[in-house]
Amino acid sequence: MAAAPHTIRMHERDNVAIVANDGGLPPGTALPGGPTLRERVPQGHKVALVDIAAGAPVLRYGIPIGHAREAIAAGRWVHERLLQMPEARGLSDLPMATRPAPDWAPLEGYTFEGYRNADGSVGTRNILAITQTVQCVAGVTDFAVQRIKAELLPKYPHVDDVVALEHGYGCGVAIDAPDAVVPIRTLRHISQNPNFGGEVMVVSLGCEKLQPERLLPPGSLPIADARGEALDVVCLQDEAHVGFMSMVESILRQAEAHLQRLNARRRETVPASELVVGVQCGGSDAFSGATANPAVGFCADLLVRAGASVMFSETTEVRDGIAQLTARAATPEVAQALVREMAWYDAYLQRGSVDRSANTTPGNKKGGLSNIVEKAMGSIVKSGSAPIRHVLAPGEKLRGKGLAYAATPASDFICGTLQLAAGMNLHVFTTGRGTPYGLAAVPVVKVATRSDLARRWHDLMDINAGTIADGQATIEDVGWELFRFLLDVASGRKKTWAEQWKLHNQLVLFNPAPVT
Amino acid sequence: MAAAPHTIRMHERDNVAIVANDGGLPPGTALPGGPTLRERVPQGHKVALVDIAAGAPVLRYGIPIGHAREAIAAGRWVHERLLQMPEARGLSDLPMATRPAPDWAPLEGYTFEGYRNADGSVGTRNILAITQTVQCVAGVTDFAVQRIKAELLPKYPHVDDVVALEHGYGCGVAIDAPDAVVPIRTLRHISQNPNFGGEVMVVSLGCEKLQPERLLPPGSLPIADARGEALDVVCLQDEAHVGFMSMVESILRQAEAHLQRLNARRRETVPASELVVGVQCGGSDAFSGATANPAVGFCADLLVRAGASVMFSETTEVRDGIAQLTARAATPEVAQALVREMAWYDAYLQRGSVDRSANTTPGNKKGGLSNIVEKAMGSIVKSGSAPIRHVLAPGEKLRGKGLAYAATPASDFICGTLQLAAGMNLHVFTTGRGTPYGLAAVPVVKVATRSDLARRWHDLMDINAGTIADGQATIEDVGWELFRFLLDVASGRKKTWAEQWKLHNQLVLFNPAPVT
Repeated sequence: MAAAPHTIRMHERDNVAIVANDGGLPPGTALPGGPTLRERVPQGHKVALVDIAAGAPVLRYGIPIGHAREAIAAGRWVHERLLQMPEARGLSDLPMATRPAPDWAPLEGYTFEGYRNADGSVGTRNILAITQTVQCVAGVTDFAVQRIKAELLPKYPHVDDVVALEHGYGCGVAIDAPDAVVPIRTLRHISQNPNFGGEVMVVSLGCEKLQPERLLPPGSLPIADARGEALDVVCLQDEAHVGFMSMVESILRQAEAHLQRLNARRRETVPASELVVGVQCGGSDAFSGATANPAVGFCADLLVRAGASVMFSETTEVRDGIAQLTARAATPEVAQALVREMAWYDAYLQRGSVDRSANTTPGNKKGGLSNIVEKAMGSIVKSGSAPIRHVLAPGEKLRGKGLAYAATPASDFICGTLQLAAGMNLHVFTTGRGTPYGLAAVPVVKVATRSDLARRWHDLMDINAGTIADGQATIEDVGWELFRFLLDVASGRKKTWAEQWKLHNQLVLFNPAPVT
Repeated sequence: MAAAPHTIRMHERDNVAIVANDGGLPPGTALPGGPTLRERVPQGHKVALVDIAAGAPVLRYGIPIGHAREAIAAGRWVHERLLQMPEARGLSDLPMATRPAPDWAPLEGYTFEGYRNADGSVGTRNILAITQTVQCVAGVTDFAVQRIKAELLPKYPHVDDVVALEHGYGCGVAIDAPDAVVPIRTLRHISQNPNFGGEVMVVSLGCEKLQPERLLPPGSLPIADARGEALDVVCLQDEAHVGFMSMVESILRQAEAHLQRLNARRRETVPASELVVGVQCGGSDAFSGATANPAVGFCADLLVRAGASVMFSETTEVRDGIAQLTARAATPEVAQALVREMAWYDAYLQRGSVDRSANTTPGNKKGGLSNIVEKAMGSIVKSGSAPIRHVLAPGEKLRGKGLAYAATPASDFICGTLQLAAGMNLHVFTTGRGTPYGLAAVPVVKVATRSDLARRWHDLMDINAGTIADGQATIEDVGWELFRFLLDVASGRKKTWAEQWKLHNQLVLFNPAPVT
């Protein structure tokens, strides 16, 4: 039996809706209260609800996602070739901090079991991280990590994992270029992620450009400073090292001191306000903005009401909604910082002869997203409706509660890497096409936009927001489900699928400066 | 007993020499036939052999590496602060293909045992490589590779290894930007490296920007085409995949067909002309240009005389020697291509507000290299003296014998990654400060510039060129030792230390285009 035709319209002004049915809908299908389809419309793609004149705006989320290149009759498939994309909104004359904050009651009484750190941050996992100044040391460090896992880790059962913070930076780069500050502070702040318990150990080569004291200058490590200790560095070129194994042994000795301290830690009950949640989407489709992202947005509001920190990101995916964001800024200064980040990225893309439209992928388009404007409107939804209180430039660390915009590229791995640097202790990732994304340092909770994906990828997707499109759950239902699941994962009571299978993507740094 | 004072002067015009003694030389040391030291000069650092007037050129390798900022008395330490670096040579009015080719006898009768491929190339190892379109699939592929190594590889004893070609590219990038051609062709050509036997298998996500047919368009795989087979792709988003393990099983099935074919291959005797040797230096010191690089240059000449292909690279490290290179070009077209690559890189660095002087590292300077001019003169030496017959833009594949300039950044990992793409089947890497560099795909032969390093890193350095500075061997001796060692390693009779310990650096792509 064919399912009843089901479309999703996001806003009362919209003159298009997306087809929700698995496999799309055939021509001749009569939409309830709407036109009859004139052609087949694939799942996630748009159908014209009324006749749209040539040049008239095509409205989704209540805003023009483009203008009709020709007259589009009601019931036609509004595919990307029928849409003329609008120009990007200019960055002047924006509404600055104009929207009143929602009148919310605080959400009280929610807690999780976390690892309290000396600097006040809270970890959701208890991991030994090995900071590396340069890619040169990656092979030796990896060899040492395998031995640490085999020989040391079993002796320290309260430590969850040992993670080498491998990256492609550190030498052969223009380290004094103006933009080199981005990868350097990214690495500095990743080494201080709350899930690493303040136990910073460094493996250095010796001759690299990114010297340990440049990566972690005095005062950048409040915890080590509190113990009155110097930065703990194993330098491979140190003259005391004779032979490969002496380097490996140095790293093992270094690791053991940190493992002992980490192993003495225990989870304690902390308020939900200690969560620092980074939200991201990848492999998006037209459902992303209708199911998973609104549910994440609802959950983001719950988190903010509970006093937690929430970051959203992906500059090219919010660029077309800049006016919404500046209006939502808590203060004019925050609005100005949003404009600063958009302008910086516009210029960065222009230097490479592209613009924000370079964002969309073949999969986005196959999934029904016609262009970056439509993608952006669906992407921003996951930030919920709280005032934006903080803006971070790429690689900066979040210091403060509430909603933050952490400016990052939209690349999944680069965004995740920068959110790690910003200090997230939990990651939420929505996907429509499906991706097995995961990180070694922080649990990644994956939210499927469609039930079909959630069924097929049953042991990779943690939450199914496709139930919203199916009419089986509301946005609020899934938002609450996610909120509770986050508290369970943060507490270590539940593991994400990516943790279960140990699926880890690389740290991929954002380096807008040249390599040499 | 203190060793006799020992200095190295590279050219009869030089007014400086470097101190060769371990630990440097104290003030009061009388240099044989030269001045008495007025201050301590560290090992590898320069001493003034005569009085040098303020503003006069300081000559090493017979060329000005800078001008004296003040009068420098004979016997003083000529450190970097005393040198005013010259401007970069302009790119017009260069000598184009002016130097006559050396009158060399061909070197005949040298062979190695290699794996002959269907496209005519020869592998030095027999490796199954798993090409990935995008970082998204890295976690799943890594999981599968661990199972392939544990469950399948033992059944195929003639296959040396299974290597996942993980990288940070493939999505979240401006894939239509003019410069995106660089990372894309790099990945395309790496998958065709001679050590992979033409067995190209691909793991794709499905929705990524770098679709398999864009990475490897029809016709780009001569071997698969010769078998009349389509590109072998496992797509994780394929609807046939239900659950994580079904993806892993697909990759295992896919791998086994390739393992069977690879396992049927045997080494055969091939002429030394089938070697494609990439030479590189990293962690350089003042000895690099006096010991290891000249020995590698001598070996490069032997290889060219034997009909082999040799590539040198590292644009910022040859930029100051552009006039030498254009003069050595085999034809004016080759000279023009060299100028094209230098000009491209000048502009690339300028976009990031830096120039070629951003190259030198703290370790270079500690090792006695005052600036990029001095470093470049020592770096170029490893190209030997053959005519330059080919020029590759970054990521291009070498097609032809003799000496080639493969334009790359000087970053060790990026240069190695691009030389892999160019088709090297053997890698020579010289180092003065010491680095444990290695690659999974191709053996890396490491040459130490100093005996002290070779002694301390006795199980990481394959060849000690420090014997040249010690007076125990000539450049020719070490060049021949390296040549014979290369034939042994290429044949699988010997392993490099990096292979012994399985020290593998990441593939790090050169992406001059923006990320999105």
